[in-house]
Amino acid sequence: MKTITLTALFLISMFTMDKTLNVNSGQTDKEFNSPVVLVIHGGAGTILKSNMRPEIEKKYRDMLTSVLNQGMELLKEGKTSVDVVEQVIRMLEDSPLFNAGKGAVFNHEGKQEMDASLMDGKSLNAGAVAGVSNIKNPISAARLVMDNSEHVMLSGKGAEQFAKEQKLELVDPDYFYNEKRYIQLKNAIKRDNIQLDHDGEDGKQGGILPGQDDKFGTVGAVSLDKYGNLAAGTSTGGMTNKKYGRVGDSPLIGAGTYANNNSCAVSCTGHGEFFIRSVVAYDVSAIMQYQNKSIKEAADYVVNTKLKNIKGAGGLIALDAKGNVAMPFNTKGMYRGVIYQDGSLEVKIYDDE
Amino acid sequence: MKTITLTALFLISMFTMDKTLNVNSGQTDKEFNSPVVLVIHGGAGTILKSNMRPEIEKKYRDMLTSVLNQGMELLKEGKTSVDVVEQVIRMLEDSPLFNAGKGAVFNHEGKQEMDASLMDGKSLNAGAVAGVSNIKNPISAARLVMDNSEHVMLSGKGAEQFAKEQKLELVDPDYFYNEKRYIQLKNAIKRDNIQLDHDGEDGKQGGILPGQDDKFGTVGAVSLDKYGNLAAGTSTGGMTNKKYGRVGDSPLIGAGTYANNNSCAVSCTGHGEFFIRSVVAYDVSAIMQYQNKSIKEAADYVVNTKLKNIKGAGGLIALDAKGNVAMPFNTKGMYRGVIYQDGSLEVKIYDDE
Repeated sequence: MKTITLTALFLISMFTMDKTLNVNSGQTDKEFNSPVVLVIHGGAGTILKSNMRPEIEKKYRDMLTSVLNQGMELLKEGKTSVDVVEQVIRMLEDSPLFNAGKGAVFNHEGKQEMDASLMDGKSLNAGAVAGVSNIKNPISAARLVMDNSEHVMLSGKGAEQFAKEQKLELVDPDYFYNEKRYIQLKNAIKRDNIQLDHDGEDGKQGGILPGQDDKFGTVGAVSLDKYGNLAAGTSTGGMTNKKYGRVGDSPLIGAGTYANNNSCAVSCTGHGEFFIRSVVAYDVSAIMQYQNKSIKEAADYVVNTKLKNIKGAGGLIALDAKGNVAMPFNTKGMYRGVIYQDGSLEVKIYDDE
Repeated sequence: MKTITLTALFLISMFTMDKTLNVNSGQTDKEFNSPVVLVIHGGAGTILKSNMRPEIEKKYRDMLTSVLNQGMELLKEGKTSVDVVEQVIRMLEDSPLFNAGKGAVFNHEGKQEMDASLMDGKSLNAGAVAGVSNIKNPISAARLVMDNSEHVMLSGKGAEQFAKEQKLELVDPDYFYNEKRYIQLKNAIKRDNIQLDHDGEDGKQGGILPGQDDKFGTVGAVSLDKYGNLAAGTSTGGMTNKKYGRVGDSPLIGAGTYANNNSCAVSCTGHGEFFIRSVVAYDVSAIMQYQNKSIKEAADYVVNTKLKNIKGAGGLIALDAKGNVAMPFNTKGMYRGVIYQDGSLEVKIYDDE
């Protein structure tokens, strides 16, 4: 039996190798010293300085700074973009500050239902999980779907079964419990009874984290490694009080996440339905490839013209193969940061900084 | 109680009206007499004339012809593209010939797990369901997600709960039972024990429908109505023996389905993982919009160059707002057909017709 399993694993790995053949890089030796860059976000939304306590703001800035520094160390060690994106998203998932992994919001049934996706800009391989509840780090499940399955997207119990077979760390629902998030759920359920829209989520209600809009808070990362390869990843707990197995843009390749060495790597955050309908992440890539626009022009047009026209709130981070960065958003704020090879670093929250 | 329900329905419909505000058509009165066109597909794959019995071939051609004629009647009556796409996909779902609805294949656990999506090219609204097992017509569930929820995509038990609350027709698993599909599953499970790839599905094994590749068989439709509006829809039972809650391209807006009055309506069929990674449906639209290519150039480039380069097997149907049609595929065959306003009609199966 064990022999059969090992043979099967060998065949799977051969298949995976075939799947990951470089179809896309045109990579040469001289590119093995590409400048390395890492960009992360921790969600966009109604984040107002007037609602933010200084000690909370400091927590966010410190966390983003620490994650960027750790990610840059990995890039300098020669880790690939796919590895670094996975690792930094794990750090963000493990922090209760963000709506992903440990900080994930509660759905209507009072449990966490998380989504994540990852894409390799070199091979155009991708992996995603949707609606998982017992996986400590959904981004690592997405990575295993990409590396060790024939599929791109797995969902629900099936995705959890796959993660279990892959020996990924599973946790008890208690791991995700967070009193502030629970109060958010109770408030959201209360509001649902009297109104249909999602107004009044200004961060002042019910003891939720100041400045933390309970619709948003997705995390994401895009990276350029020394081999000149891009990768993008996104992870989220979705919307507080979400029902009916709702899937947002975060686990959808093309909508919430996209990477292609020939254009850019993109991770999105915002009101997912609008990002799906606008195929936002891929759209930035398409505008660059088909119209020869810069990453700044493409990303700005998608977020501040196309999304705005349909009232789609949110933002994205984007990085091209030369290390150019764009971080547009059309909300009051977006937790975001970038670090370059020389160690220079920017961490920002509000729209006026 | 009934009053409350009616009030809620009224509020939902007001909300839906607001959501469906025309953001995209630039429609004027003179366009209310657009030429109407309907295109459908019943899946692409290794469909060989040498494997096809004449009486089976006739069944497919008769069914596609009948669906096209019925759809054209609806368009001439003034039905919208969204309505017609939903209705003709229901007809294809109700037929055991195709891998959707009644003809859906069995997953690894021996049940049907179906996906569908629908997009309105006028409003850019969209709806989708993934992994549903007891809904007679998944395309109608996708329609209700679009019309009666704030969401684009619902999955699994949650999507079934939503369908139930929306009074959609639910059926017993027996409804989907089909001996030929069951034999396909048994064969696929047997093959999995000895091989990892999907070769040998040439339609001759185990009594499966001649010429019916068990990986493929998705159905789809794209329509142009007299108001000049496009819509696209796709429905599938996925892959025989699929595991782990695998989600393919069919329920993913941008990958399997996309519609936009400013470019085109697209429905895809094929090896879903490659269609997701290539964001195929939206890519056709992007090439038209950003490079001013014709629908034939854009669709052909995506299917016969981009997909082929990554060994992605399959095809698509596409229709622009002037009524131009493209139906490229890179497999041996694709069940497909188009009908124009004057009643002229084409139904084709193989690659050499």
